[in-house]
Amino acid sequence: RRRGIPEAILAEGKTPAEVAALATTALDTTGRALVTRADEATAAAVASAVGGPEGSTADGDASATVDRDDRTGTVVAHAADFEPPSLDATVAVVAAGTADAPVAGEAAVVAREVGATVDRVDDVGVANLDRILDQADRIREADAVVVAAGREGALPTVVAGLVDAPVIALPVSTGYGVGGEGVAALEGALQSCSVLTTVNVDAGFVAGAQAGLIARAVDAARAP
Amino acid sequence: RRRGIPEAILAEGKTPAEVAALATTALDTTGRALVTRADEATAAAVASAVGGPEGSTADGDASATVDRDDRTGTVVAHAADFEPPSLDATVAVVAAGTADAPVAGEAAVVAREVGATVDRVDDVGVANLDRILDQADRIREADAVVVAAGREGALPTVVAGLVDAPVIALPVSTGYGVGGEGVAALEGALQSCSVLTTVNVDAGFVAGAQAGLIARAVDAARAP
Amino acid sequence: RRRGIPEAILAEGKTPAEVAALATTALDTTGRALVTRADEATAAAVASAVGGPEGSTADGDASATVDRDDRTGTVVAHAADFEPPSLDATVAVVAAGTADAPVAGEAAVVAREVGATVDRVDDVGVANLDRILDQADRIREADAVVVAAGREGALPTVVAGLVDAPVIALPVSTGYGVGGEGVAALEGALQSCSVLTTVNVDAGFVAGAQAGLIARAVDAARAP
Amino acid sequence: RRRGIPEAILAEGKTPAEVAALATTALDTTGRALVTRADEATAAAVASAVGGPEGSTADGDASATVDRDDRTGTVVAHAADFEPPSLDATVAVVAAGTADAPVAGEAAVVAREVGATVDRVDDVGVANLDRILDQADRIREADAVVVAAGREGALPTVVAGLVDAPVIALPVSTGYGVGGEGVAALEGALQSCSVLTTVNVDAGFVAGAQAGLIARAVDAARAP
Amino acid sequence: RRRGIPEAILAEGKTPAEVAALATTALDTTGRALVTRADEATAAAVASAVGGPEGSTADGDASATVDRDDRTGTVVAHAADFEPPSLDATVAVVAAGTADAPVAGEAAVVAREVGATVDRVDDVGVANLDRILDQADRIREADAVVVAAGREGALPTVVAGLVDAPVIALPVSTGYGVGGEGVAALEGALQSCSVLTTVNVDAGFVAGAQAGLIARAVDAARAP
Amino acid sequence: RRRGIPEAILAEGKTPAEVAALATTALDTTGRALVTRADEATAAAVASAVGGPEGSTADGDASATVDRDDRTGTVVAHAADFEPPSLDATVAVVAAGTADAPVAGEAAVVAREVGATVDRVDDVGVANLDRILDQADRIREADAVVVAAGREGALPTVVAGLVDAPVIALPVSTGYGVGGEGVAALEGALQSCSVLTTVNVDAGFVAGAQAGLIARAVDAARAP
Amino acid sequence: RRRGIPEAILAEGKTPAEVAALATTALDTTGRALVTRADEATAAAVASAVGGPEGSTADGDASATVDRDDRTGTVVAHAADFEPPSLDATVAVVAAGTADAPVAGEAAVVAREVGATVDRVDDVGVANLDRILDQADRIREADAVVVAAGREGALPTVVAGLVDAPVIALPVSTGYGVGGEGVAALEGALQSCSVLTTVNVDAGFVAGAQAGLIARAVDAARAP
Amino acid sequence: RRRGIPEAILAEGKTPAEVAALATTALDTTGRALVTRADEATAAAVASAVGGPEGSTADGDASATVDRDDRTGTVVAHAADFEPPSLDATVAVVAAGTADAPVAGEAAVVAREVGATVDRVDDVGVANLDRILDQADRIREADAVVVAAGREGALPTVVAGLVDAPVIALPVSTGYGVGGEGVAALEGALQSCSVLTTVNVDAGFVAGAQAGLIARAVDAARAP
Ligand SMILES: Nc1ncnc2c1ncn2[C@@H]1O[C@H](COP(=O)(O)O)[C@@H](O)[C@H]1O
Ligand SMILES: Nc1ncnc2c1ncn2[C@@H]1O[C@H](COP(=O)(O)O)[C@@H](O)[C@H]1O
Ligand SMILES: Nc1ncnc2c1ncn2[C@@H]1O[C@H](COP(=O)(O)O)[C@@H](O)[C@H]1O
Ligand SMILES: Nc1ncnc2c1ncn2[C@@H]1O[C@H](COP(=O)(O)O)[C@@H](O)[C@H]1O
Ligand SMILES: [Mg+2]
Ligand SMILES: [Mg+2]
Ligand SMILES: [Mg+2]
Ligand SMILES: [Mg+2]
Ligand SMILES: [Mg+2]
Ligand SMILES: [Mg+2]
Ligand SMILES: [Mg+2]
Ligand SMILES: [Mg+2]
Repeated sequence: RRRGIPEAILAEGKTPAEVAALATTALDTTGRALVTRADEATAAAVASAVGGPEGSTADGDASATVDRDDRTGTVVAHAADFEPPSLDATVAVVAAGTADAPVAGEAAVVAREVGATVDRVDDVGVANLDRILDQADRIREADAVVVAAGREGALPTVVAGLVDAPVIALPVSTGYGVGGEGVAALEGALQSCSVLTTVNVDAGFVAGAQAGLIARAVDAARAP
Repeated sequence: RRRGIPEAILAEGKTPAEVAALATTALDTTGRALVTRADEATAAAVASAVGGPEGSTADGDASATVDRDDRTGTVVAHAADFEPPSLDATVAVVAAGTADAPVAGEAAVVAREVGATVDRVDDVGVANLDRILDQADRIREADAVVVAAGREGALPTVVAGLVDAPVIALPVSTGYGVGGEGVAALEGALQSCSVLTTVNVDAGFVAGAQAGLIARAVDAARAP
Repeated sequence: RRRGIPEAILAEGKTPAEVAALATTALDTTGRALVTRADEATAAAVASAVGGPEGSTADGDASATVDRDDRTGTVVAHAADFEPPSLDATVAVVAAGTADAPVAGEAAVVAREVGATVDRVDDVGVANLDRILDQADRIREADAVVVAAGREGALPTVVAGLVDAPVIALPVSTGYGVGGEGVAALEGALQSCSVLTTVNVDAGFVAGAQAGLIARAVDAARAP
Repeated sequence: RRRGIPEAILAEGKTPAEVAALATTALDTTGRALVTRADEATAAAVASAVGGPEGSTADGDASATVDRDDRTGTVVAHAADFEPPSLDATVAVVAAGTADAPVAGEAAVVAREVGATVDRVDDVGVANLDRILDQADRIREADAVVVAAGREGALPTVVAGLVDAPVIALPVSTGYGVGGEGVAALEGALQSCSVLTTVNVDAGFVAGAQAGLIARAVDAARAP
Repeated sequence: RRRGIPEAILAEGKTPAEVAALATTALDTTGRALVTRADEATAAAVASAVGGPEGSTADGDASATVDRDDRTGTVVAHAADFEPPSLDATVAVVAAGTADAPVAGEAAVVAREVGATVDRVDDVGVANLDRILDQADRIREADAVVVAAGREGALPTVVAGLVDAPVIALPVSTGYGVGGEGVAALEGALQSCSVLTTVNVDAGFVAGAQAGLIARAVDAARAP
Repeated sequence: RRRGIPEAILAEGKTPAEVAALATTALDTTGRALVTRADEATAAAVASAVGGPEGSTADGDASATVDRDDRTGTVVAHAADFEPPSLDATVAVVAAGTADAPVAGEAAVVAREVGATVDRVDDVGVANLDRILDQADRIREADAVVVAAGREGALPTVVAGLVDAPVIALPVSTGYGVGGEGVAALEGALQSCSVLTTVNVDAGFVAGAQAGLIARAVDAARAP
Repeated sequence: RRRGIPEAILAEGKTPAEVAALATTALDTTGRALVTRADEATAAAVASAVGGPEGSTADGDASATVDRDDRTGTVVAHAADFEPPSLDATVAVVAAGTADAPVAGEAAVVAREVGATVDRVDDVGVANLDRILDQADRIREADAVVVAAGREGALPTVVAGLVDAPVIALPVSTGYGVGGEGVAALEGALQSCSVLTTVNVDAGFVAGAQAGLIARAVDAARAP
Repeated sequence: RRRGIPEAILAEGKTPAEVAALATTALDTTGRALVTRADEATAAAVASAVGGPEGSTADGDASATVDRDDRTGTVVAHAADFEPPSLDATVAVVAAGTADAPVAGEAAVVAREVGATVDRVDDVGVANLDRILDQADRIREADAVVVAAGREGALPTVVAGLVDAPVIALPVSTGYGVGGEGVAALEGALQSCSVLTTVNVDAGFVAGAQAGLIARAVDAARAP
């Protein structure tokens, strides 16, 4: 698909059967399928439709390989003959707390599908600065950085002050009361004193895809 | 006045003459006057009404001593015989950037009037972590900490992760667009991953007064 | 843990098994566990994992003591050898109505865990002023005061006009329609004519912890 | 005019000449004119158009009597032969602070024009409960009560807990930051634990007119 | 109870058993109980606790009379010896459409309990003006008028242009999208070109109680 | 220009000279110019640049005819040889109060430029239903109806209940406090119980242009 | 019914039995029934009440013809002797993505019931411009155009730049986070650089009915 | 400075003298100064302080070269010996309309200072698709694309559907009424069906700087 970003099927608001059908079509058409925000039933329906011994594409081809990440709610299927892209570029996906991990996971899956090497850095929220400072050198290795954080969302600002690569804030819908559900985190990204851009609350797919586009540009420049 | 907090006169929306009259009354009644959010004309009107050679209270008493801080917009006047309280307790007033300094200044003036020793720490925004880390030991000396920050307002969360004393966030009305005018900073305080309480945007008076109340409690406990 | 505040496990959005596991780890690591917003199933799972005859920590130690408050949704567990802190300081936790009691209860549990003596004052909403006036002297005994109120949230303003100690408003998510779900109560705290600071809607943990920090400061000053 | 409420001319956004012309027409048509939110220039223009020696209505009649209240921004003119209504009923107009007085004044002027006896009670904000408790008996004399308050707007709730007559909250556009400009006060009225109804922020005209309608109903019932 | 308004038990968020217990207490203490927002199970629990052959108060007194209105979600119980107040005054309760009827019903029940004669006028939304014009004379008979309307909420403005008595707008939480859930209706009441006051969205209890207070004032004036 | 809608120059935020230059260009290019939201200085600058004896287009052609409406803030200029379109279709432009007239005027000017016959109906707000009922037959003559109303914006709903033609609501930025500045009127249009579509607050140009497009469709159908 | 628009029964919030009863009444009274937002159970209840062998109207007439569209959630029933209107006019109903189709479907059903020929154009979102450009000529055939789009809602603006007929935006409640649930799409319609009017989020009924009114006007003009 | 992004001085809310002083310091310290949001007086003050014959840095060095862009409100000054960075990478800066050009200009200036070649593409709003389609190939040349658009903000979504490079939306504060001041444009970016990231309304500096960071990454990859 255009720009190397896999067509994603947002499972929310669709039945397991509908999602499985869409995934099968995607697999037939493009060689892969990416399902996001799938609950367990949907993930199982997709997996059984396209993979495993009895799994097969609508064309009766050999079954696809299937990768489920239930915490993140994603399912990735590759047709037997799909050659995944591989870029000479790295995306760091940084998460503040455990509640931010699933959304960060969605970004990671997408960036990986675009072909980037993904480096996950978890549990480095700013309430304990030592953790993020300890990981700074590692994050500085990446060509693009996604930073997932909910609640007050201070982490993207701190990370963008520590690294040279472009930083993409990924606000997460944690927090209750006023500014909850990720709103404070999104507004914090929009108001950041550091240079960074942002995606909407919980939009792991978009953050991972944009980081992937930067990785593609860098990869192309490295080996033209 | 009750709780040792000076009666404050909010100059906004009043004429210089009105503010001067209110300040004169406060001086006569309580021995001091505190004017906040005064522009230059108002500050001058107050100063000339209550201080200087010709300055005098309505009772014709000896003139008051007057302390103007034009950047912060405060005027403090003490009657000749006013004995300012003096507490055995310290309040740190920390500000992220230069735009946050005036609001921080209002908090500092109030805390000082309550009797606390005030330690100002300026220009320690989180976009450059070294600055705040360099000042951490100094801030740890305080019995209560006010942290003024606008834009994304990440600093109070970071400071509350570094110190043991109670932290009061003071959101500042900087920033434009969505979440601007201090809204993101306030919501960031409400959603903070660290333990802290907050006041409204630009409410330096309230933050300084609450820090002063904590200082009074500590002072009373130290020397009962 | 830092500042004497117990690490709290927010049960919302986690399965009973997950919460029980996290509680067991906390107990092993820090000697205690504090679970908030637990429904009955979760509270039971935690209790049976860490306490009772068969209850034991992962290390096989003697079972912990467990304290459930189902109305408030908290579970506190102390390891057999945990020595709870005890401060020479009091926190008053005041609630306007019966609907405010569970949130106030969360604040009380936390303040108690920090080591403060907690005095609960319930059902003193301002629609009937006699009730709060009758309790004023009792509340004046406290070193810090948490005031929980929903709907129009007038009580924190009234209490802060009656006492000398620092007051922390704790808005509660009662009320429907415009300004409902605690929004009017939070905005009322931010706009209060009395000096007070606030936490977010339903943030009993934060209010109790901040009151606990003030109690610690006072206790340290009393007996240095 | 219908319901005995004078036709009001809202001066905001009109030139002094336009307001003066509208007032002259109202005077000719209905025997009186009520201008609200007039600045000094407008008030002067109206006064000189309809009153004083040279003042006269468009018909060349004897000049009208004019009553300006510059703090409130109202001008009331009665034609020489206008017989003001007089009701056997009282409206109390209560205000929390000095900043609330002008809006309360607008309500008072309107209630008076409807014919009610108006009793003003000022400066009884809830931060100092003694003041409102001292005035409770006096307010209990009224047949309808308007309560003007800005900032956190706690006063209407407290008053409605003290009196038997219907209470109308009149939120005032004081306060800055989140919930400022009267929003917290309006939401507080909507969420009140006491029984009361409300008008929009600064809508003194509406509050006074509704109180006047109640006074008319009571007056009619008293002397049918 | 104060002002003749029955103490109401808001059933939302309470179990049937809890509500039944509270209702029994209210009956014992005040001679009546009013439950609002009760679903069928709750209404049944209350009815069986306080009424019918086996129904009895905790004191073992003769069973109370019980009046359930399932569409409105209210249950009213009167002790055998309770003498309901009876006022010489009428409250009209007007509703725009069928979706507004339950909320209007809550207002009607409360006004009736205060003692007013209640006249219900249903299905007179402004999309068909003939209906409301046909009922105008009837509504003009009332001493106070409650007008319930959702969606765009135009009806209270139209009614207040047709009658002399005080009008109370009762916005209803119908409508979806922007301005839905009663928000447009409430804002329409706040912005009305006619004189009226308002309560919050769905606050039938408050609207009915305020209308009842006006009815009480009129009744007292009629027969003092 | 496309669809027969004149290219409009929004004067707000531009200097008189800039607007005059843009108008001259429009006149040269398309034969006419339409300036909206012009203050007096701008209107004068445009008029003198393109019309009067010395007025001329940049090409030195005979001067254009100029039509200023200062209350509405529009200027229309037609080149000497411009042949204005003339449609066999009528647009009614209805306004609730005097404050709504300028915005209604903008809609009328645009509809007229598209070629429709425009019928203005003013001062028919719903607080006095007789006025709008008196004009209903006249409005029923139109092929499309624009209804301008601010404050609570009830008029479009009422009109759409009286006529068969498509109704376009035009919310006006009157009203203060919550729901002010046209917000309640816009939300009322979105929630209307009658069938109608809406434009944004004060968007007279869009409402008039859409009504013009309907008039064009009707005209084309009448005489194909 | 007035304007040729069928009376619609909004199924949301009603039981299947209630909706079936209302539909039966509508069928008896007006010869047809239109149910919107029906889930499967409700659609089945309606169908079995009014159609099929055993289906019959309350009068025992021959059973009605029933048309269910489960994806859109609509049920249309025509009495055996109902003569559907037929207009010489076309409405195009354009949808951006698959998630927008159900809401577009509601608009299509209503426009069809008013008598217009409806042309559905699906899956032409702006992220791939070729699709909409390919369909432009087809859409230009219509006399009125409804454009359904969620998320960022760019499609109505693009379509209104491509066609001459009046365009009605129909924002759809897709999208999550800030601006989600159709809010960004609605605001985009209100701010559009092209001339168009809008309805509320998901208000397919209103969009279809307004397009139907335009089709009626055009039809009447074509064959008067 | 860190990341190659020049330290920017936001002129808003500072006096010309203050800005000139800050610019002089920046020039002395870092070899260049970038002032944004400067009005004419401020731009002149900066220019005369640091450039021209008499212009000189505080150190008395040879005067700096100064580049003013009054429409954009930026001033760039380079010390005589400053060697501007030059990257082998291009940033396209695309603007929808003339009102978007100043904000786009700010982004362009910053990207240029970071060292990128900047290609400006103006006046390609989506109301006329031909314009943007004509420029698509040109925009496809860039390594990163900034797209400035106000009102409904549809352009970034369309551009991201046409190019492979990463796209950064830059919402502009045009538009009035609901969703005005850039809010609809920002929400449209957050909800976009195409992959893109966004900055806050009018944040040209941030968009240009982030595009510059991508250009730096690409440049480094091209010539390591
Ligand atoms: N988790 C996600 N967040 C945001 N966008 C998504 C997500 N998953 C899929 N999408 C986008 O949404 C489109 C699918 O929309 P739909 O046609 O409703 O399935 C895909 O083309 C993706 O670009
Ligand atoms: N800068 C300020 N911010 C918040 N509250 C203030 C400020 N200055 C004064 N106040 C409070 O506002 C009250 C004055 O209100 P007023 O009667 O309007 O002058 C004082 O009693 C203070 O408690
Ligand atoms: N201060 C005020 N607040 C609210 N409504 C007012 C006020 N003054 C006048 N009005 C109402 O606004 C109407 C005048 O509106 P207008 O036609 O714009 O002058 C009068 O009929 C009054 O009912
Ligand atoms: N439907 C209702 N809407 C608004 N307030 C109500 C309603 N029902 C009861 N109330 C009020 O809420 C109070 C009960 O609060 P609680 O202590 O939480 O039961 C009563 O005293 C009533 O004044
Ligand atoms: Mg976080
Ligand atoms: Mg900051
Ligand atoms: Mg309360
Ligand atoms: Mg107040
Ligand atoms: Mg309605
Ligand atoms: Mg109106
Ligand atoms: Mg879309
Ligand atoms: Mg645009």
